[in-house]
Amino acid sequence: MKNTFGDVVSYTIFGESHQDMIGIVIDGLCPGLSINEDFIRHNLWKRRPDGNLSTQRIENDNFSIVSGVYSSKTTGTPLCLLIPNENVKSNDYENVKTILRPSHADFSAYLKYHGFEDKRGGGHFSGRLTAPIVACGAIAMDILSKKGIKILTHIKKIGDILDRDFDNINDDYEYLKNEKFAVLSKDAKEKMKEKIKEVKENGDSIGGILESVVTGMPGGVGEPWFDSVESKLSHALFSIPALKGVEFGKGFEFGEMLGSKANDMLRVENGKIITLTNNNGGINGGITNGMDIVLKTVIKPTPSIYKKQLSVDYVNLTNEELKIKGRHDPCVVQRAVICQDSIIAMTLLDMLSQRFGTDYFLN
Amino acid sequence: MKNTFGDVVSYTIFGESHQDMIGIVIDGLCPGLSINEDFIRHNLWKRRPDGNLSTQRIENDNFSIVSGVYSSKTTGTPLCLLIPNENVKSNDYENVKTILRPSHADFSAYLKYHGFEDKRGGGHFSGRLTAPIVACGAIAMDILSKKGIKILTHIKKIGDILDRDFDNINDDYEYLKNEKFAVLSKDAKEKMKEKIKEVKENGDSIGGILESVVTGMPGGVGEPWFDSVESKLSHALFSIPALKGVEFGKGFEFGEMLGSKANDMLRVENGKIITLTNNNGGINGGITNGMDIVLKTVIKPTPSIYKKQLSVDYVNLTNEELKIKGRHDPCVVQRAVICQDSIIAMTLLDMLSQRFGTDYFLN
Amino acid sequence: MKNTFGDVVSYTIFGESHQDMIGIVIDGLCPGLSINEDFIRHNLWKRRPDGNLSTQRIENDNFSIVSGVYSSKTTGTPLCLLIPNENVKSNDYENVKTILRPSHADFSAYLKYHGFEDKRGGGHFSGRLTAPIVACGAIAMDILSKKGIKILTHIKKIGDILDRDFDNINDDYEYLKNEKFAVLSKDAKEKMKEKIKEVKENGDSIGGILESVVTGMPGGVGEPWFDSVESKLSHALFSIPALKGVEFGKGFEFGEMLGSKANDMLRVENGKIITLTNNNGGINGGITNGMDIVLKTVIKPTPSIYKKQLSVDYVNLTNEELKIKGRHDPCVVQRAVICQDSIIAMTLLDMLSQRFGTDYFLN
Amino acid sequence: MKNTFGDVVSYTIFGESHQDMIGIVIDGLCPGLSINEDFIRHNLWKRRPDGNLSTQRIENDNFSIVSGVYSSKTTGTPLCLLIPNENVKSNDYENVKTILRPSHADFSAYLKYHGFEDKRGGGHFSGRLTAPIVACGAIAMDILSKKGIKILTHIKKIGDILDRDFDNINDDYEYLKNEKFAVLSKDAKEKMKEKIKEVKENGDSIGGILESVVTGMPGGVGEPWFDSVESKLSHALFSIPALKGVEFGKGFEFGEMLGSKANDMLRVENGKIITLTNNNGGINGGITNGMDIVLKTVIKPTPSIYKKQLSVDYVNLTNEELKIKGRHDPCVVQRAVICQDSIIAMTLLDMLSQRFGTDYFLN
Repeated sequence: MKNTFGDVVSYTIFGESHQDMIGIVIDGLCPGLSINEDFIRHNLWKRRPDGNLSTQRIENDNFSIVSGVYSSKTTGTPLCLLIPNENVKSNDYENVKTILRPSHADFSAYLKYHGFEDKRGGGHFSGRLTAPIVACGAIAMDILSKKGIKILTHIKKIGDILDRDFDNINDDYEYLKNEKFAVLSKDAKEKMKEKIKEVKENGDSIGGILESVVTGMPGGVGEPWFDSVESKLSHALFSIPALKGVEFGKGFEFGEMLGSKANDMLRVENGKIITLTNNNGGINGGITNGMDIVLKTVIKPTPSIYKKQLSVDYVNLTNEELKIKGRHDPCVVQRAVICQDSIIAMTLLDMLSQRFGTDYFLN
Repeated sequence: MKNTFGDVVSYTIFGESHQDMIGIVIDGLCPGLSINEDFIRHNLWKRRPDGNLSTQRIENDNFSIVSGVYSSKTTGTPLCLLIPNENVKSNDYENVKTILRPSHADFSAYLKYHGFEDKRGGGHFSGRLTAPIVACGAIAMDILSKKGIKILTHIKKIGDILDRDFDNINDDYEYLKNEKFAVLSKDAKEKMKEKIKEVKENGDSIGGILESVVTGMPGGVGEPWFDSVESKLSHALFSIPALKGVEFGKGFEFGEMLGSKANDMLRVENGKIITLTNNNGGINGGITNGMDIVLKTVIKPTPSIYKKQLSVDYVNLTNEELKIKGRHDPCVVQRAVICQDSIIAMTLLDMLSQRFGTDYFLN
Repeated sequence: MKNTFGDVVSYTIFGESHQDMIGIVIDGLCPGLSINEDFIRHNLWKRRPDGNLSTQRIENDNFSIVSGVYSSKTTGTPLCLLIPNENVKSNDYENVKTILRPSHADFSAYLKYHGFEDKRGGGHFSGRLTAPIVACGAIAMDILSKKGIKILTHIKKIGDILDRDFDNINDDYEYLKNEKFAVLSKDAKEKMKEKIKEVKENGDSIGGILESVVTGMPGGVGEPWFDSVESKLSHALFSIPALKGVEFGKGFEFGEMLGSKANDMLRVENGKIITLTNNNGGINGGITNGMDIVLKTVIKPTPSIYKKQLSVDYVNLTNEELKIKGRHDPCVVQRAVICQDSIIAMTLLDMLSQRFGTDYFLN
Repeated sequence: MKNTFGDVVSYTIFGESHQDMIGIVIDGLCPGLSINEDFIRHNLWKRRPDGNLSTQRIENDNFSIVSGVYSSKTTGTPLCLLIPNENVKSNDYENVKTILRPSHADFSAYLKYHGFEDKRGGGHFSGRLTAPIVACGAIAMDILSKKGIKILTHIKKIGDILDRDFDNINDDYEYLKNEKFAVLSKDAKEKMKEKIKEVKENGDSIGGILESVVTGMPGGVGEPWFDSVESKLSHALFSIPALKGVEFGKGFEFGEMLGSKANDMLRVENGKIITLTNNNGGINGGITNGMDIVLKTVIKPTPSIYKKQLSVDYVNLTNEELKIKGRHDPCVVQRAVICQDSIIAMTLLDMLSQRFGTDYFLN
């Protein structure tokens, strides 16, 4: 379905970096739900580049909702949210037009779109399209919170600098809610920022790892085959630009583990069945078990670096050297945090609506 | 869509471990393609437990194709393949009926199906359902090979034992084709087998990591948002039981990398654009670039171990101890290899048919 | 999605007329629902040809359910139902192999499947595939009846012979339930049977019109655009072989009507909002309004007639004359009745499950 | 999928009558196709109310395409087209807020959206949303014409006034292309206009029948079950507001026909297989046979009439009388013509792209 995902609540994005506007259509929302525009603005602020760590253009993201909301409440009909593109500098990209940028989508896009794609500013491939996703995610997060479902993402790692583990989920949630650079340990946060500045000064870029927790998710959601919670979440998460891996619970650590260490022992606590550990990340057999969903993703270093690189001219089929100009982030890991929150919220909203019916969030 | 995946070529599985039969329906196949039943049998043999490394029941997998094939060629109408369940021992599972098996789907299934699920032998959650997937994958692999597309998977790691990297893809392909325990290095293979036997003797289980390469895949396949090659492949791969992580190219290693190391430099070679490294695993912006697709997955240790475990009785809500009986694999990593080949083939067959039309494989 | 339809409850059919078996997979069923095999058998009996009015082969339809049911209740996992093909006479069709049968799918199938289709007995196009649809429909009708939803279809017309209108829906329902030739008026029934016999003796065939009512359907189901109740029902209904038109409420009569006659006036009756007429057939703006759903369909005369017809040899591209042999129904209108009931039930089961969640029928 | 339809090329609409704008997202278009904005404007003009026959508001439909087009050519990424709502008079509708308009979607919408729907001007149910559908249809028609596929719709009937049959398809196509009131016979056209004026003066409304032909459609497109050409077209056509029936070829006339009259005899003509009649409307077994697709639909009289009607107050549950004010069409049949052309084009564009691949229209 290309630019649409979701079965019962579905999301369709459109737009290019350097056209007038970009946007998203959300269909299948339960009617009667409040839309909190301040929360959308707050999350868009989280996504925006930070002047010190970035050379990116600053966009105001003055979104408007042109359908599906009446008297500040969802109507149940498709909600279209538009965001104008501002501060566009197309000439930065002119010189790279026929020389491919290494590890960018330039070449694969050419093979698919035969050169008709809008290449300016990354066009439809631009990270700019995460703005409507974040706006949409804010709406989804707000709806999920009505059922006590909270999503938290922090930067687990940038380079070799590690953040601490999640501790008290509620406290960590309150802290992260208003934090633009989502690192729990203050020390790690400063070191990561230093690292990014250093990388930026070298004209280089760097990757990192994100960790997310979903708390309050009901058990019994998901499918054993093909539409497991892992399948759905990973499908959606791989839409985050530069994201190249997803793991649940202990993830790749399982490769070295024994079953006797990996298995989550069960206990009854206050009349409720819980597990003593949560190595499986809240999902067994593709279905939620009522424990927190835990997942990690990896974000690769942004391919736009200022160092000289080997490349080719795809028109003349000649070997070339390339030095990229323009405004680019040396690290997008911190900006991916709110994208990841958003994509998770959008996916779970769809799955819950399918499981419990479209009126579920009204009650 | 639950037990169906695929847009233009779609796959629907059904069945439970201890009922009469299990199966799969493949819809949207190009007509006129030869069905190689020997190759299906060969791949089913690869999936079957190995007497020395397993205590699993041995199934003959005497499949039959009851529709969609005429005169040994696909008709273009839905192909249904059935496999009888044999050698079923339901009483092994009787004693665990109300005591949950840790890290199994028992509890999450109960929350979803309210106790109406067929629990015998894992029911619909059983690894047994990978048999029709492997049979179907054989058909898909055979079709892809008509376009020169080959899929290779090896065990990269079990416990702390590492296999060598892929080397000459064609040689490795020829070797792996007939290898039931898919390890490239003979030394690593022996050590892994020893490790599994040791784990088995201890009543424990162990996990591992699989690595796959797809060679010959055309560029320009996939979508930038929501239906990237990574999205589609991970969605499908997470249907492999016990699979808990997927990464493409350098995957989680990107979290520590600099862009200048991560980027794949471009060159023209024999009039063709190639990359000097393939850290991105053949996919940029969600779209294939003509280089090999490279991915890794992790398989967790099987939760069925013979050690005493803490558990609960979900009916009486009491804490209990559990000692699992029955026949179980101490390691399913080696059996997951052919499942992974199969799922990859099924996914790419669908994506290629969508991109190039349903007659693509006829020519 | 070709041979699959339905979003939350989905149905996948497979099979050809002259292979070993045909079947259907039903996915997304609410768990814990009783399966009434007698009712399935009863409905399959309704679908079977009547010896006096048909020259069709008689099939016993000894179906088996091989998955998704445990202890006579749905498990919530895919239900696969298989029906063996019996009493197959392939040689009847040998002589028509390269001469196209007028108004059959022979030529359009050839253009799609390039001659690889299984042509024996109509192959995948055979009305034989309505057997699994009827079996599936019986399951769906049974589930809907738990919520008080009943579906009735009668033959409104064969040739120029008209049945009476529906009168008391409950009485008509009881009568039609056990009636294989679904005509309300005894007089019309006899005349229609006479007409079919006369047509049969002439080696000809005849069409007719079916009318269906769904009573007890909740309001508020359906979508204003693209997934209206009319869209979904017509989509599914056009899968009934030979069905060439669908209309809702007054249907094509609206073309001559004034709004003042067509509009359904509203009243409050026993505290409930009803309409005094039901010209709109229970659907406004694509959404059910709580009144009975009313629709009509037309079934064309079966194209298999015994008269000499002008045709062509599609291999040699020569003009030919054709005289069809084999066993064929002179009228399929009476057999389409239970197909129509079934398709309606399957469609509404899906729509209700999407609207109210997958556990809706448990309560 | 609610407000989205299409598998390979998909369409998502959004908007309400009295909000700032409405629009459509088209995804999956082949890249490199010219966008003819004049043709879009022309078709939007065809859809607009005619001052003499209508009391509707006049909208300029100053659409803008904000994504998916670069240098006047499709990029292959989602095309979003927006149309501002102008000349909005919301107060006309204030007085009907709690009194239901008979045969409108007021009550069914209330049952679905619980009163949160935007009721102004019909909200999301408004015929206003056919504007983006017509704009999208213009794009689709333009693309289909590259392969020689033409779609023609005329008003077959309004009240008891009949238009002549299609005659020379090319001449009729040229004539209808620029005709806002799409009737072939001048005499019938005048009579129909007179009829509508008469009905308008009486404060009443009237329905009619549309007939469409698709010429140049390749054979071999469509599926035998569930995704027949009839299934797909009817699914989409029932999104046209007020459309209550669809029939293919002879349609409901088949109910009285004998097979010997209904069957389309085959002949070879200039080395090509054709049928002497086209009673089946170009579709056999759900698949196109290369002859013209022929279908008819019925449009009910608009429910907004100025006569006094019986109704209810759905809040107070009291019986009421209602006299509708505001601006309403006495007949929408003439405006539905271009909607029908559009919906047919959109559906076939999707089916052709699925059958022949996404690059089909490039060559």
